[in-house]
Amino acid sequence: MKVEKLKGFRDHYPEDMEVRNYFFKKITNAAENFGYQLIDFPSLEPLDLYRLKSGTEIVNQTFSFTDKGGREVTMIPEATPSTVRLLTARKDLPRPVRWYSFPKVWRYEEPQEGRFREHYQFNADVFGLDSEEADAEIVGLASSILDYLGLSGVYEININDRFLMEYVLKDLNIEDIPDAFSIIDKYKKVDKSSFIEAFKGIGAGEDEIKKILSLLGEKVDIGNMEKKIKRVVNNYEEIKPRIERIKKTFDLIGLYTESKINFDFSIVRGLSYYTGIVFEAFDVKGELRAILGGGRYDGLSQLFTQEKIPAAGFAIGDAVIELLLKRQNLWLKRNIKESYYICNLSSENDDYIIKVASVIRSLNKIAVVDMTHRKISSQMKSASGFDFAVIIGEREIEENTLTVKNMHSSEQSTIGYDEFFLKLRSGNN
Amino acid sequence: MKVEKLKGFRDHYPEDMEVRNYFFKKITNAAENFGYQLIDFPSLEPLDLYRLKSGTEIVNQTFSFTDKGGREVTMIPEATPSTVRLLTARKDLPRPVRWYSFPKVWRYEEPQEGRFREHYQFNADVFGLDSEEADAEIVGLASSILDYLGLSGVYEININDRFLMEYVLKDLNIEDIPDAFSIIDKYKKVDKSSFIEAFKGIGAGEDEIKKILSLLGEKVDIGNMEKKIKRVVNNYEEIKPRIERIKKTFDLIGLYTESKINFDFSIVRGLSYYTGIVFEAFDVKGELRAILGGGRYDGLSQLFTQEKIPAAGFAIGDAVIELLLKRQNLWLKRNIKESYYICNLSSENDDYIIKVASVIRSLNKIAVVDMTHRKISSQMKSASGFDFAVIIGEREIEENTLTVKNMHSSEQSTIGYDEFFLKLRSGNN
Repeated sequence: MKVEKLKGFRDHYPEDMEVRNYFFKKITNAAENFGYQLIDFPSLEPLDLYRLKSGTEIVNQTFSFTDKGGREVTMIPEATPSTVRLLTARKDLPRPVRWYSFPKVWRYEEPQEGRFREHYQFNADVFGLDSEEADAEIVGLASSILDYLGLSGVYEININDRFLMEYVLKDLNIEDIPDAFSIIDKYKKVDKSSFIEAFKGIGAGEDEIKKILSLLGEKVDIGNMEKKIKRVVNNYEEIKPRIERIKKTFDLIGLYTESKINFDFSIVRGLSYYTGIVFEAFDVKGELRAILGGGRYDGLSQLFTQEKIPAAGFAIGDAVIELLLKRQNLWLKRNIKESYYICNLSSENDDYIIKVASVIRSLNKIAVVDMTHRKISSQMKSASGFDFAVIIGEREIEENTLTVKNMHSSEQSTIGYDEFFLKLRSGNN
Repeated sequence: MKVEKLKGFRDHYPEDMEVRNYFFKKITNAAENFGYQLIDFPSLEPLDLYRLKSGTEIVNQTFSFTDKGGREVTMIPEATPSTVRLLTARKDLPRPVRWYSFPKVWRYEEPQEGRFREHYQFNADVFGLDSEEADAEIVGLASSILDYLGLSGVYEININDRFLMEYVLKDLNIEDIPDAFSIIDKYKKVDKSSFIEAFKGIGAGEDEIKKILSLLGEKVDIGNMEKKIKRVVNNYEEIKPRIERIKKTFDLIGLYTESKINFDFSIVRGLSYYTGIVFEAFDVKGELRAILGGGRYDGLSQLFTQEKIPAAGFAIGDAVIELLLKRQNLWLKRNIKESYYICNLSSENDDYIIKVASVIRSLNKIAVVDMTHRKISSQMKSASGFDFAVIIGEREIEENTLTVKNMHSSEQSTIGYDEFFLKLRSGNN
């Protein structure tokens, strides 16, 4: 019998995990420096949590089932609803609240490049602030994370505003906003004629569709965004305050990052809970899917409580980031801890050898004891990849010494036990 | 509508997560110092992976279901089968292989103190070695982890040997070994008469049951273990080599830890895949469930491949450890990074403030900007819990200075921007 892993799921071996972990820590480190604090929540939640607000597409793509107690449950497809549940369950938390999490999430969809059925997803959210400053901080954190990862100049951020878009659509006499967003969400994936047909299907006239297309055409800088809007809406003054807010947000984002920030009317994001700014980051070459995405979602708290709590956040999946880091040749192993491989040439005296290993470990360095009792040449082969080989035979045990070989320089010498640890403690090895 | 979290699942807020994370890092740090390397695998696996070798009890307690593609799958109830799958899938790995992982695992069972339906489980395993040295390293790592956590003297380790137990049971003419183990596994949970009845049910005679009871009575040191065995088995010489191995293992474990190590014939562990040493750690007061458990399982590789690969490992759940650390008053918040709360008294000039925050962050310290535009007293209240408050108003912006208050000593002074960062960089704040 041979049991294989499920389709769309990944195994990760140490050579991979070391690098992943290195970058995961960079991400969480950036979040911590911004004052975001780690939370955690169940990987399994009631399916109802996603039914109302996440959009039907997501619910259809869940690993959901009925548990042994008859409950309809799902492996979480995203972190936001759980995060908001935690927030609303605690009335005592002084706001604003800044949180991050790094759970696995699951989606039942066809695996493709940069998309799996299971992935780690970093999330950051700020609650209790509805302002340009808060919007800019969230985009600024997203951008800073990519900068911390070494991706400055490799990505750009595309921004839209759902509030603005909703105004525009209503101004163009389009009533069915959710469907309109869902059509716009597929703008880049379908051909122009089916896009137009879809909009006709929800009652839009030809003029209106032309206007929408004039917006979606290409991403622009913030000045040209204003010009485009002026050409499309009937009463610019009415929406001007919102435009001012967006302009101010763009200014503030520029204080966090030197990366390119565009306005892109075609970014609406599939999730139905967004209410304000929405954004995605892409590689500038445009080769990959979105690196991250997020936005403002002020209404989601009402799933759990009367109160409408301002909220903005974003999520980064691990898969596209990994692809991008690999293409930038940044996916490299970093030796963080000094490592020692202890070749054991004595047949009996484990005491001395295990003592040596224990002391090395107590200094927060890696020590592996060879337990194979093979000949020295085979043991030394296993030592490659370590920083040092420590050779201990009968002579060393008798004389209370160690033979230490620097595996990078190939220098080798026999030194006293005390001298060795004196050097190790002072960091002069 | 109010959606609540599922029964037996936990939310974790920042105050909790900080402490958890601190201890999780202690655990992984110990594993890394022993040369164990991190792996990761899916949280969802084919149910077949557990059907054959994990024992029926576990399979009945899984969150298992049929996925949208008709596959019988389960949220993983333990890490060992997946770990062995990863091992056998890679023929190129030089052995011994030392791995650790820290996944969530799920069991559908009644929640009780120290037992939830979802928990994090640390796992460490060594593959390719079948020796006293390897057995001792695994127990030694388990013990060192508890020592790293600050629990020295608070726990003891109880050890048995499934190979020895199987020999004894067969020597007492008991044929149905799996059932016998399963009865012994419940020894401490049932009364004596039902224990005796259960053994009679698998054909054991009164004399044999008396002998088994003489072993299980209480845990002993390694010398008394030998005496007990001598009184029970018919031909001591036949099993003597195994006793010698166990004695040697105990000697070696003593090189890793000063904690108490007992031999306990009643420890057999529920899982059907163990083949040699088995062990559990308990708090010395005996108040809690097992803190960790593991053993040797040389046959499990044959789920995936012809080859029988020697293997030994253990797992630590997060729940009992947390209870124990709390009872020892070790569950305390540790400030790891220096933190700065920036009170913003300017209404317009975000540039200066965000620049200050960015530079603090770039020095790997925490900086939070107050974005509420409240009066200074309210902002200062939010600064409590931080190491420093940085107050920036119109005057500071004009003069290119910062007013810094040490929140521990209450000292406050206004200093120049350059001077501030010079001090910060040199670590003399």
